[in-house]
Amino acid sequence: MESMNHQMMGYDRAITMFSPDGRLLQVEYAKKTVKQGSTAIGMVCSDGVLLVTDKRIVDPLVVTEAIEKIFQIDEHIGATASGIISDARVLIERAQVKAQQHQVTYDSPIDVLSVVKNICDLKQICTQSGGLRPFGVSILVAGIDPEGPKLFETDPTGIFFQYNAVVIGEGEEGIEEILHKKYKPTISLDDGLKLCVDALSTVLDDKFNAERLDAAYIKTSSKKFTKISKKELENVLKQVK
Amino acid sequence: MESMNHQMMGYDRAITMFSPDGRLLQVEYAKKTVKQGSTAIGMVCSDGVLLVTDKRIVDPLVVTEAIEKIFQIDEHIGATASGIISDARVLIERAQVKAQQHQVTYDSPIDVLSVVKNICDLKQICTQSGGLRPFGVSILVAGIDPEGPKLFETDPTGIFFQYNAVVIGEGEEGIEEILHKKYKPTISLDDGLKLCVDALSTVLDDKFNAERLDAAYIKTSSKKFTKISKKELENVLKQVK
Amino acid sequence: MESMNHQMMGYDRAITMFSPDGRLLQVEYAKKTVKQGSTAIGMVCSDGVLLVTDKRIVDPLVVTEAIEKIFQIDEHIGATASGIISDARVLIERAQVKAQQHQVTYDSPIDVLSVVKNICDLKQICTQSGGLRPFGVSILVAGIDPEGPKLFETDPTGIFFQYNAVVIGEGEEGIEEILHKKYKPTISLDDGLKLCVDALSTVLDDKFNAERLDAAYIKTSSKKFTKISKKELENVLKQVK
Amino acid sequence: MESMNHQMMGYDRAITMFSPDGRLLQVEYAKKTVKQGSTAIGMVCSDGVLLVTDKRIVDPLVVTEAIEKIFQIDEHIGATASGIISDARVLIERAQVKAQQHQVTYDSPIDVLSVVKNICDLKQICTQSGGLRPFGVSILVAGIDPEGPKLFETDPTGIFFQYNAVVIGEGEEGIEEILHKKYKPTISLDDGLKLCVDALSTVLDDKFNAERLDAAYIKTSSKKFTKISKKELENVLKQVK
Amino acid sequence: MESMNHQMMGYDRAITMFSPDGRLLQVEYAKKTVKQGSTAIGMVCSDGVLLVTDKRIVDPLVVTEAIEKIFQIDEHIGATASGIISDARVLIERAQVKAQQHQVTYDSPIDVLSVVKNICDLKQICTQSGGLRPFGVSILVAGIDPEGPKLFETDPTGIFFQYNAVVIGEGEEGIEEILHKKYKPTISLDDGLKLCVDALSTVLDDKFNAERLDAAYIKTSSKKFTKISKKELENVLKQVK
Amino acid sequence: MESMNHQMMGYDRAITMFSPDGRLLQVEYAKKTVKQGSTAIGMVCSDGVLLVTDKRIVDPLVVTEAIEKIFQIDEHIGATASGIISDARVLIERAQVKAQQHQVTYDSPIDVLSVVKNICDLKQICTQSGGLRPFGVSILVAGIDPEGPKLFETDPTGIFFQYNAVVIGEGEEGIEEILHKKYKPTISLDDGLKLCVDALSTVLDDKFNAERLDAAYIKTSSKKFTKISKKELENVLKQVK
Amino acid sequence: MESMNHQMMGYDRAITMFSPDGRLLQVEYAKKTVKQGSTAIGMVCSDGVLLVTDKRIVDPLVVTEAIEKIFQIDEHIGATASGIISDARVLIERAQVKAQQHQVTYDSPIDVLSVVKNICDLKQICTQSGGLRPFGVSILVAGIDPEGPKLFETDPTGIFFQYNAVVIGEGEEGIEEILHKKYKPTISLDDGLKLCVDALSTVLDDKFNAERLDAAYIKTSSKKFTKISKKELENVLKQVK
Repeated sequence: MESMNHQMMGYDRAITMFSPDGRLLQVEYAKKTVKQGSTAIGMVCSDGVLLVTDKRIVDPLVVTEAIEKIFQIDEHIGATASGIISDARVLIERAQVKAQQHQVTYDSPIDVLSVVKNICDLKQICTQSGGLRPFGVSILVAGIDPEGPKLFETDPTGIFFQYNAVVIGEGEEGIEEILHKKYKPTISLDDGLKLCVDALSTVLDDKFNAERLDAAYIKTSSKKFTKISKKELENVLKQVK
Repeated sequence: MESMNHQMMGYDRAITMFSPDGRLLQVEYAKKTVKQGSTAIGMVCSDGVLLVTDKRIVDPLVVTEAIEKIFQIDEHIGATASGIISDARVLIERAQVKAQQHQVTYDSPIDVLSVVKNICDLKQICTQSGGLRPFGVSILVAGIDPEGPKLFETDPTGIFFQYNAVVIGEGEEGIEEILHKKYKPTISLDDGLKLCVDALSTVLDDKFNAERLDAAYIKTSSKKFTKISKKELENVLKQVK
Repeated sequence: MESMNHQMMGYDRAITMFSPDGRLLQVEYAKKTVKQGSTAIGMVCSDGVLLVTDKRIVDPLVVTEAIEKIFQIDEHIGATASGIISDARVLIERAQVKAQQHQVTYDSPIDVLSVVKNICDLKQICTQSGGLRPFGVSILVAGIDPEGPKLFETDPTGIFFQYNAVVIGEGEEGIEEILHKKYKPTISLDDGLKLCVDALSTVLDDKFNAERLDAAYIKTSSKKFTKISKKELENVLKQVK
Repeated sequence: MESMNHQMMGYDRAITMFSPDGRLLQVEYAKKTVKQGSTAIGMVCSDGVLLVTDKRIVDPLVVTEAIEKIFQIDEHIGATASGIISDARVLIERAQVKAQQHQVTYDSPIDVLSVVKNICDLKQICTQSGGLRPFGVSILVAGIDPEGPKLFETDPTGIFFQYNAVVIGEGEEGIEEILHKKYKPTISLDDGLKLCVDALSTVLDDKFNAERLDAAYIKTSSKKFTKISKKELENVLKQVK
Repeated sequence: MESMNHQMMGYDRAITMFSPDGRLLQVEYAKKTVKQGSTAIGMVCSDGVLLVTDKRIVDPLVVTEAIEKIFQIDEHIGATASGIISDARVLIERAQVKAQQHQVTYDSPIDVLSVVKNICDLKQICTQSGGLRPFGVSILVAGIDPEGPKLFETDPTGIFFQYNAVVIGEGEEGIEEILHKKYKPTISLDDGLKLCVDALSTVLDDKFNAERLDAAYIKTSSKKFTKISKKELENVLKQVK
Repeated sequence: MESMNHQMMGYDRAITMFSPDGRLLQVEYAKKTVKQGSTAIGMVCSDGVLLVTDKRIVDPLVVTEAIEKIFQIDEHIGATASGIISDARVLIERAQVKAQQHQVTYDSPIDVLSVVKNICDLKQICTQSGGLRPFGVSILVAGIDPEGPKLFETDPTGIFFQYNAVVIGEGEEGIEEILHKKYKPTISLDDGLKLCVDALSTVLDDKFNAERLDAAYIKTSSKKFTKISKKELENVLKQVK
Repeated sequence: MESMNHQMMGYDRAITMFSPDGRLLQVEYAKKTVKQGSTAIGMVCSDGVLLVTDKRIVDPLVVTEAIEKIFQIDEHIGATASGIISDARVLIERAQVKAQQHQVTYDSPIDVLSVVKNICDLKQICTQSGGLRPFGVSILVAGIDPEGPKLFETDPTGIFFQYNAVVIGEGEEGIEEILHKKYKPTISLDDGLKLCVDALSTVLDDKFNAERLDAAYIKTSSKKFTKISKKELENVLKQVK
């Protein structure tokens, strides 16, 4: 009811406007875009960090291998996103450049938090300046720092949180429940992958198959972003079914 | 009903605005422009990649040979478009310059994906910045990379997908069905051309004739963008009828 | 009915806005301006290319010889326009500068298509950027290239087509019909002029006289833009009546 | 009725907007401003060119001699205006600077048409760019070129016409009729002045007197802009009454 | 009635907008501000030029001597204003700088008309550019040129007139009548001052006293801007009462 | 009633807009902000100039000594404000920089009027330019010039007046009456302080106590801005009660 | 009721607009955002200054240690915030840069007030310039100056106050009451921490636990910003329960 009133009064027509109860409605709408995006899971494991996503493609003529849903930002950092994927690409490309510049300038790899803050800075600007809309995308950033694996989520507001395990997109509610029950920080990358695939197939149900899966991990030992092959994913999918 | 409400409330009057359910309506309207555009087909074949389009011109005084519907971006890359053709030209000309710059800077041909991303970057900006409208055009980009032939579609949002075969524009629904049934990755350029022409003539029916056809291919062996002559197209058209 | 709805909803109040069915209404309105403009005909002949226009002036105190309706862009290129003539002047003057720059930079005359694309680039920008309106004018560009005579039409969208013969402005419908019946690519400049004058006098009827006529040709042999004198026009007019 | 509809729909609230029937209503309103302006006449005579205007001042405390209604642009070029006089001043001052620059750069006097085009360029921009309004003034430019005397009118659209004789402002309709009847290109400056003063006094009637008259001529022989003294004007007024 | 309609339709909400009858309503409203301003009189006398104003201050704690209502622009030029006084200050300060620059550049004093045009140039811009409002002030500029004393009024439109005697502000109507009856160009500065003070005291009536008076003159002989002391003003006031 | 109409019509929604009766409503609203601000008094005394303000703080955890209500602009100039205090800070900081620049450039202290004009210039701009709001603050500036103590008030319009004694803010009406009755220019700083404190305690009544008082003076002899200690203020408060 | 009217009239739709009663409604709405933010307490103690906040996180998968709610600005200065945390980050990062620049430029640590003013300058701009919204965050800044510990609050208006003890966010009303009763300037950091934790746990009640607590102090002796460990916080929490 109150929300209907806000709409009638037009408080949700510009990002440079607070509603009388102190909300930024355009930013809240952008978050809804994320909720309708394809599902993405991040997980810190005992031996590294893991990203698993649903590509959500059904057209058999699409080259599914080429779908960009998990992006490499630096040798030791990867990311995935849920929401408007072209928005994600803008942020990811900026982060890649930022990581390269850091490597060149300081002769050492960038830390994961700096990448996250860089993404959030631009996101915040787009919630405050007229003539732009907020980015309609949440991004999971995963990487290995000297202290170990790290996993962050950034939302359309430009806020970020560090997680042990997190899920965004349409499957969020169902999978979050599964993670709360089954995730433990001592889980290995192998078992983590099974947990993620199992969760995705449970929530997405019969719409789900190996074609739609995308996954990558970064081991704490090697610090190398590594895509998981379709074959491996098919194996995992067989095991969990 | 909900859509009607969105219109009454004005959520579809600016690209810098999300609707309460997290949609960018102006971008969705731009996609409708594409759906009404002339039909264009792209196809990856065993020996190269193929673009076939309907010029959709009926005035006999127009110099049909001169109609720009298939554009060369670089020696090994071509493109076609559906929607607002003057919008397409802006994007294609930028891509041509980008390809030349790459050749000069790196002394090697640009890869197809870089061209696609360049187009999508500008498209994304036009969905986020006030004072501009989204590009009302989808573009098919086809080319040969060291790994072989590649085919991409970019939509008004700035999202892209890699395809084995794809169709855009007014004939989309009918021809997609045909492609799903008859397309195989092992198809040759010759048979691919017949399939495309057959599909176009089936869907566009009696409005269709050889004058309206435009086609080009890039062979994996030669890596040279080559226009198919009117004569060849007439021959193919006879065969499929 | 649907159109009325679009107006009620305001989709036609800004160029940076698509209507729900994917149209740019402000650009469509600009095209109506052209339809109400004075009539202009272009024609490719066996020995050159021809432009004939109605000056549409009735005040006897106007110096009709001085009315600018056919413009020289370069020695070998001319143009005429229908719609808002002050808009045309802006585009023509830019084209003249562009042609001069080309001559100076490359020491060779500019080709007709480059002039046309230059005009269309600016026209496209004015259909996409807020704070500007579309150009309310269509321009016919005629010239001689190494391959022979060429004739183009550019519309307010920034789209162009190459024609053998074309007419724009208020007499468009009537004269198009005549051109479809009587025009042949083998026609000579002399006969082409008669055809154009005849068509104009038929459609504009008794409002028409020699004072209102303006015409120019560029011969393939000489490649020189040449205005046709009032005397010659009067002679032709006598012959066709 | 239709016009009322356009107003209800707001098509006349911004210059960057076409109405559904392809009109620029703000520019049309600006032309109404001109129609309400003080009357100004231009006339090409056998021995030069003439400008005569009504100062339209009735307050006896105003220094009528000082009212700027006829402006000198260069030694051989003058101008007068009808509509918003402060708008006219902006355009006239730009033209004066342009004329000086031409003299300095090319060491020869500027031709009248260049001055006219310069004025029209700025006028056109103000009909196309948001955040500006059209100039609410028409300007008559009169001067002597190597080929003889020339007279132009520029309207708020940025369109110009060359005239033998022309009138703008509130007395336009009445005086145009008189000019059509009595003007001949063979008229001398002396007789032209009488004709103009007679026409003004007929149309403006009893509101008219010598105080309100302003006039200037440029002889073809001397090419010098010359103001006509109050005494001469009084004499002429006596003769025509 | 018509005016009410204009308001309903919003033609008076922006300076960059003409009403359907060709008026700039925002500029007309700015003129109303002037009509409500404090009264100011300018007068050309036989031996110089005079400015007399009502300070319109009633608070006894204000330092009336310090109220800036008559401003010195250069040694030989003064000004006064009616309307928004902070607007006046902006224009006057620009004029002071302009006068200094002229003196330095040409080593001779600026003429009065140049000062007036400089003020009007800025005023005109503010009636044409969006994002600014018109200046809500009329300014009287008085000074001595080689040809003698001069007096100008500039209004919010950026139009100016030269006057022998003029009044602006709330007392305009009453005092104009007095000036028409009693002013003669042969009047001396002494008698002119009496006439002005008498006129002010008649119109402003019992609200008026010596405290509120401000006056300055510039003699043709000395060409020096000179403020008239409170004592002198009290004497004059006694004489006229 | 008329005011209600103006609101319905939207004349009060932008500073770049006059109402039909020539008012700038946004500036008038800004003045209301000042009327609701905390009370501030300025007073010229026989031996210097005085500023006394109400800090209007009731939270006992606030460090009242640190509340900035009286600002030092230069050694010999101070200021206080009523309205939006963060607006005041912007203007005061600019004035401090301006004063320093003057000292450095001319090797002499700035005069009080120059500081006042500097503040008013920025205030005026903010009443004329779109995209900014007027400053919602009035500022009292007090200082010693070679001619003696001076006191000015600047309002949101950018207008200033010189006063012998002045009060702004919520207590304005009550205290103005007291000043009119009891203030004399021969009053000493000591007696002036008592008068101000007495006036504040009378008007603010039981909400008032020594904690809330802030005061500073600049003696004509020393020309040094000096804050009055809490102890002194408590003593004065005891005397007046 | 009056507030409802303001909303109907749209006075709360832009920061560059005053309501008729002189309020900036968008800034007031921004303050509501702060009131709904997580609770943060600042306290000046006898031996230093203390910041204690509620992290307000309930998801057990979040890495609570990593939540940024207390920020270090310089070695001797810290800050915390309530409201939109991404807004806070923008302001804090600017302050960190400002502090570093000061250290480098003057070779001495920045004082706390300079940091506060820097934050408030940007906040004020965002309440006055169109196209930006106010910052929706209040920030507590705590640090040690040569004179001892200092604590400031800055609100969305850009106003700041110095406090001995202060609380912002959702628990404000309850905790303020507790601070008024129990806080004394002689309290030690140890006892202060207990008071803060006790107050938080009382107000937030059973939703509260050690995980959610974050705290830091800066001792007057060492002048070093120091985070309080989770262990210490758990101990304190046990003591107060």
